[in-house]
Amino acid sequence: MNLIIIKNEELGKDGKTVIGGVRAKHIISILKGETGQVLKIGILNGPIGKGTILGISNETVTLQCIFSEELPGEPRIDLILAMPRPKVMKRLLAPLASLGISRIFLTNAVRVERDYFDTHWLKKEYYEPLLIEGLQQASGTSMPEISVIKRLKPFVEDRLDELFPHTLRFLAHPGAKEKISAHRAEGKGILLALGPEGGWVDYEVAMFEEQGFSPVSMGKRILRTDTACIGLVSVIREIVQ
Amino acid sequence: MNLIIIKNEELGKDGKTVIGGVRAKHIISILKGETGQVLKIGILNGPIGKGTILGISNETVTLQCIFSEELPGEPRIDLILAMPRPKVMKRLLAPLASLGISRIFLTNAVRVERDYFDTHWLKKEYYEPLLIEGLQQASGTSMPEISVIKRLKPFVEDRLDELFPHTLRFLAHPGAKEKISAHRAEGKGILLALGPEGGWVDYEVAMFEEQGFSPVSMGKRILRTDTACIGLVSVIREIVQ
Repeated sequence: MNLIIIKNEELGKDGKTVIGGVRAKHIISILKGETGQVLKIGILNGPIGKGTILGISNETVTLQCIFSEELPGEPRIDLILAMPRPKVMKRLLAPLASLGISRIFLTNAVRVERDYFDTHWLKKEYYEPLLIEGLQQASGTSMPEISVIKRLKPFVEDRLDELFPHTLRFLAHPGAKEKISAHRAEGKGILLALGPEGGWVDYEVAMFEEQGFSPVSMGKRILRTDTACIGLVSVIREIVQ
Repeated sequence: MNLIIIKNEELGKDGKTVIGGVRAKHIISILKGETGQVLKIGILNGPIGKGTILGISNETVTLQCIFSEELPGEPRIDLILAMPRPKVMKRLLAPLASLGISRIFLTNAVRVERDYFDTHWLKKEYYEPLLIEGLQQASGTSMPEISVIKRLKPFVEDRLDELFPHTLRFLAHPGAKEKISAHRAEGKGILLALGPEGGWVDYEVAMFEEQGFSPVSMGKRILRTDTACIGLVSVIREIVQ
């Protein structure tokens, strides 16, 4: 935990906050917090600042906070991800938040099993703690927005220009000759579409290409969804920063 | 499983092999294998070829194999990794094999907990199946070699030129300004040194820099060891391929 994240509603008008649970435990046991000590604090989807420890009880820590006026500015990376099997989705949440993804659209696709959408990992009360864990690791405050898209075709054909204007669009496609690093973002946001295990079917590839997506790959090797996703986003971060 | 891997000793002189366990189950239940069907087969640390199903019993599959003369040629990427906590090490094994790492040197460092080295994940009978799982996913056959280095200083100061001649050397260091993608491999192998949670201490950074390592990062965010490792190796693959 390199940043303690609080929600806006946890912050009093006087800049004081009282936190408990995992975060308090971390401050007390790992950071060996003491009264007067200054910690890095962030507001979820807000600025980063400093919190001075005013007091520590058994299970809570009281902090006096001051925040910077500025929001951390970062390039926008959005992800269209064919709904992975639930355990893979769970595994990806913290890393994707730590890598600074802005929005994640979990979509249907021909090779997605229908029952994947029944998972409790699509409920906010389950996925939010994992996203916040990733933010606290990486010192980010912008929580990725998660949306579920049950019908891929109208989403790809009708909604992309409104949702993702001025973006470079990449379609992850094992074996594609082109590499992401051959591109430069030049200030544009990036949109990456990553398929299910077994890949997008030809029809889906054609649909994405029609909307300006360039098929890209990390070489011939066929990677597990979570490895490919972290790898491709890492390569994208190199071209946008 | 995009490639079925067998060990050399499982292959008869007549090119026949009888396999059981997880691989047979996969061929029978997932691939719906039938007599006469041709599958992609690889020999561990050897060539890739084709196996024709001769027969299927309840729990075994018999295949007649033919292999190509050539070994799959790939750029060499080696990793010096400060020994991570055992559950992180376990999580990294399959992805690192799937990304084609040649050698992994698990080293001590100031911020490595000594008891991490007691884990059973350092025993071949535990780590080998996970490495093979990664190879079978990615269609590679070269299994990463794993070594344990208990004394970091003599290893870095005395053994690198012999073990890693003609390599580009990168030191992962959160916040370093330089990016891997600013380099070109030009046929050289790559050596990446990745520190423990909390990073290398200054003394260790200086020791690596002395040996020609360039400090690099993926930006300001502090990533979990496994995310950073997969991300940096993915970026390295972009500059060597």
